[in-house]
Amino acid sequence: MIAADEGFHGALGAAAARVEEALADFLPADDTALGAAMRHAVLGGGKRIRAFLAMESAALFRVPASQALRTAAAVECMHAYSLVHDDLPCMDDDQMRRGQPTVHVKWDEATAVLAGDALQTLAFDILSRPQTGLDPRVQLRLVQRLAEASGAHGMAGGQALDIQAETAALPLTLEETTALQGLKTGALIGWAAESGAILGRSQPEPLLNYAAALGLAFQIRDDILDVEGEAEVMGKRVGKDAGRGKATFVSLMGLEAARDRARALVAEACENLKPYGSAAERLRQLAHFAVERPG
Amino acid sequence: MIAADEGFHGALGAAAARVEEALADFLPADDTALGAAMRHAVLGGGKRIRAFLAMESAALFRVPASQALRTAAAVECMHAYSLVHDDLPCMDDDQMRRGQPTVHVKWDEATAVLAGDALQTLAFDILSRPQTGLDPRVQLRLVQRLAEASGAHGMAGGQALDIQAETAALPLTLEETTALQGLKTGALIGWAAESGAILGRSQPEPLLNYAAALGLAFQIRDDILDVEGEAEVMGKRVGKDAGRGKATFVSLMGLEAARDRARALVAEACENLKPYGSAAERLRQLAHFAVERPG
Repeated sequence: MIAADEGFHGALGAAAARVEEALADFLPADDTALGAAMRHAVLGGGKRIRAFLAMESAALFRVPASQALRTAAAVECMHAYSLVHDDLPCMDDDQMRRGQPTVHVKWDEATAVLAGDALQTLAFDILSRPQTGLDPRVQLRLVQRLAEASGAHGMAGGQALDIQAETAALPLTLEETTALQGLKTGALIGWAAESGAILGRSQPEPLLNYAAALGLAFQIRDDILDVEGEAEVMGKRVGKDAGRGKATFVSLMGLEAARDRARALVAEACENLKPYGSAAERLRQLAHFAVERPG
Repeated sequence: MIAADEGFHGALGAAAARVEEALADFLPADDTALGAAMRHAVLGGGKRIRAFLAMESAALFRVPASQALRTAAAVECMHAYSLVHDDLPCMDDDQMRRGQPTVHVKWDEATAVLAGDALQTLAFDILSRPQTGLDPRVQLRLVQRLAEASGAHGMAGGQALDIQAETAALPLTLEETTALQGLKTGALIGWAAESGAILGRSQPEPLLNYAAALGLAFQIRDDILDVEGEAEVMGKRVGKDAGRGKATFVSLMGLEAARDRARALVAEACENLKPYGSAAERLRQLAHFAVERPG
């Protein structure tokens, strides 16, 4: 596991490197367009927040690192699939992601649709393999909760609401935006956070509550960065949400109130970590990082 | 279970009605665009060959009907997702499916991408729910094999090859077309056929061999119908593959040789059912149906 003196950024980077290596093994070879597109979508970038969450959550329950790593890889595949599809011309129409051309730009739309499709499948594949070596009941619970977090009542449902909101007559209210983000990004973050508790056969509620606050804090910070950030730091277009007249936490609350809300959410996230004592220190640092990061 | 004197078409229709009812329960409500699009994509049509295969396969091993029905519903969700994405403008660009407008025509492309995404997730959700009430090891095996059949080394991989073939300098050879169809349609048909053996903790090989021959026979018949069929019977555009200069079994073998090959595949399919004796009669009838059906 990660040495305690490494510090938060070192730990985040080390976790990212480990999951990157695992993902490189799980992904198909790049000798087909589909395989190459899947590798492009998943490898070489991202802070791997979801993977870090899964690994830190697992560490709380002394879950073997190999099991945690598979769970971390699965959530990154699921996240990458959602980004590839969100970037499509019929959705957000983004050309760049992590400083690289998006999949439909580098290949084509058909390949992007299929690469996203196959990445979703790969997430379930990784979790269900016997090599994961867990109690099948635990593995099955991970699969079922991931499906719940990702489908029509989770991530895909949130993205559908987001797309609809763009053509709606009125911008969403603060409550609606909060609910939408809870589905679109919160559900998968929640799964990553609870995965360690599932693996450790423990109650996931404190971690789910932590993740709900964390996910919202991340989104508010994203919205703040969207109006403030520099394209070089973000590695993608900025100002795009504000430019579309889309409701964001900044447009709904104002910049200062959004900052205050984000800080309150960090406190709320940390409050939910109390049962875990000092073992949850990195998760506390992650909550602070969510609202302090420069991009 | 289905009464023995009902005859093949009655049995096929009865199985379709049962899985339709189950699917209507599993699918989200139609009070959102995403839910309505998912219901449109899945309900109200199709011969439900994959569901029938799953249910007949389960019957061979005396698997409880409720378990077989969930497996059947899962494979129909997976199949429907693939159709919704295949119909997209960036793929086959089809306007009609089963006599109805395709999802991206009735809604929009974004909704079609997300409805397909959420249908894939739903397939895994259905299989992994505790209500399925199986041995978790068996459920997990179903999940893992479905992921294998559907992902980059299965259905999605086959579709990617198909898309690439359209822009390739040379049409595919017969061997390449056979391999492509084995992935694109064969893998999921194989999963449906083996699912009963998995549920019944039995060897799936004879059923996988049966399904490989069956799937290819179905595809050859589709190619024959594509050049011969009437739009009214097919409920979709016909002649589209031939019109694109795409390699089909008919273009590669000629009409008569394609018919002969399809008949040989039916014999091969039935040969693999010998271990099951008269219990596999409906699966034999399905193989004959594959090459005799009018649409």
